[in-house]
Amino acid sequence: MDVSWLKGHGTENDFVLLPDPDGRVHGDLDPAFVAALCHRRRGLGADGVMRVVRTEAIDLDPALDTTGAEWFMDYRNADGSVSEMCGNGVRVFARYLLEAGLVDVEAPIRIGTRDGVKVVTRAGDELRVDMGPFQVGDVSEVTVGQHAWKAREVHTGNPHAVAFVDTVADAGPLLDQPGYDAGVYPEGVNIEFVERRGDRHVGMRVHERGSGETRSCGTGACAVGVATALADGASPTADVPVRYRVDVPGGTLHVEWTADDHLVLEGPAVIVASGQMEWRA
Amino acid sequence: MDVSWLKGHGTENDFVLLPDPDGRVHGDLDPAFVAALCHRRRGLGADGVMRVVRTEAIDLDPALDTTGAEWFMDYRNADGSVSEMCGNGVRVFARYLLEAGLVDVEAPIRIGTRDGVKVVTRAGDELRVDMGPFQVGDVSEVTVGQHAWKAREVHTGNPHAVAFVDTVADAGPLLDQPGYDAGVYPEGVNIEFVERRGDRHVGMRVHERGSGETRSCGTGACAVGVATALADGASPTADVPVRYRVDVPGGTLHVEWTADDHLVLEGPAVIVASGQMEWRA
Repeated sequence: MDVSWLKGHGTENDFVLLPDPDGRVHGDLDPAFVAALCHRRRGLGADGVMRVVRTEAIDLDPALDTTGAEWFMDYRNADGSVSEMCGNGVRVFARYLLEAGLVDVEAPIRIGTRDGVKVVTRAGDELRVDMGPFQVGDVSEVTVGQHAWKAREVHTGNPHAVAFVDTVADAGPLLDQPGYDAGVYPEGVNIEFVERRGDRHVGMRVHERGSGETRSCGTGACAVGVATALADGASPTADVPVRYRVDVPGGTLHVEWTADDHLVLEGPAVIVASGQMEWRA
Repeated sequence: MDVSWLKGHGTENDFVLLPDPDGRVHGDLDPAFVAALCHRRRGLGADGVMRVVRTEAIDLDPALDTTGAEWFMDYRNADGSVSEMCGNGVRVFARYLLEAGLVDVEAPIRIGTRDGVKVVTRAGDELRVDMGPFQVGDVSEVTVGQHAWKAREVHTGNPHAVAFVDTVADAGPLLDQPGYDAGVYPEGVNIEFVERRGDRHVGMRVHERGSGETRSCGTGACAVGVATALADGASPTADVPVRYRVDVPGGTLHVEWTADDHLVLEGPAVIVASGQMEWRA
């Protein structure tokens, strides 16, 4: 099979992009193909695959609003399953659209996703995406071995439990699922361990449900930004968002809590390679 | 930079191949380029890079015997450093030569390496490589946490300590360097944990010095084959080699101890993708 592809990453959350503008190359992406492509030893290796398709060329739930989004991010997890959204992924997706000249470089980029339209804008060399509204819940407990911490529940598209720790090393090697309150999180939870590094500056590690520890998590960084702001008693004004620097293992992100109670994720997004390949696996 | 590339693996020991027949594309490979290519998040991802170059087109130590080897495996580790040989790598290298029609499919393939000429032959769908002679040393102790095992010293191009365990799970997550006798292994050692699985059939895990636990190790499988044969009191006759099945985490290898006291490594070697890419990282 001859495949047009790109590889890119945002803070080491990495993706294979498959340009398929008219939906004629890949059609309904084969989950087995996606899983093979993402395998880090037997394939190319990636956290996920994003098919780049015109919104008019993909069959979608008619209830999904894609207003003004010429391009659709058809996102798949590394196991081949469909996913709604990925905050680092959509920024890499926008980088491709920009570099390929498929969108106006001066205007906000409206990208269709299964979680609705996401708007990406440029900030110097970095890309910002409005991740939309969030919800804050109660405090419950997370545990790693004999250690226990209080953790704030934050929903940013998916559920997070944010625990403040003395140092992120306290969470240990994170090989096993940390403990959490299944009453609060019946569908599982992503767990962030956060240490203070300075004024409006934190470092985090994340254990993602189903994936284990990862190098970066966009919705997790957003949850950490909100939880830290709440802990600091900070909130946005009409003119000034609350802005936090959030270091993840794979790099540095910034998170803003805006006056309209949205979260904005900002950080690097780069394409490292592109070409045509003959795929044989 | 426009690069011709392939990705392949042998029991999930994976490699990027860079065809450069006349040595004009990559010259003396830039270590930083190799390391960037091999990075699993910011690059393509691989355990190593093999430049495919005609032996006459590479500057080599004049003392190195490359008799009859038209092609040279210019092997680099994932960190960009030069390495002499890789048992899984040389089989993937041979697979490429076969598929590209660069060698006679009926004859043994002589491949130049910095460890001398390696001869690869076909065995059905798999590829065999003569890994050359080996040396067996004494028994010393290896440790993981509170556990200690006796381990046999075997040199198969590099040093190994082979420990028989009840089950390979006994070695735990293997995140840290296991303990070993620095008097026996002043330059460090690869450590294999071996469990019995049947008649002339074992399973192993390996901790490679400098790399941590890996999915496969060709010289390690060879060391395990010899150590198991010695434990079993088995040795080759003029007509019949000693043959062991060695399961590694990434697949299945077979190791033969031949009458001339060489070790032969046999297993799958596949190319999964190939093409031209624009490399931007």
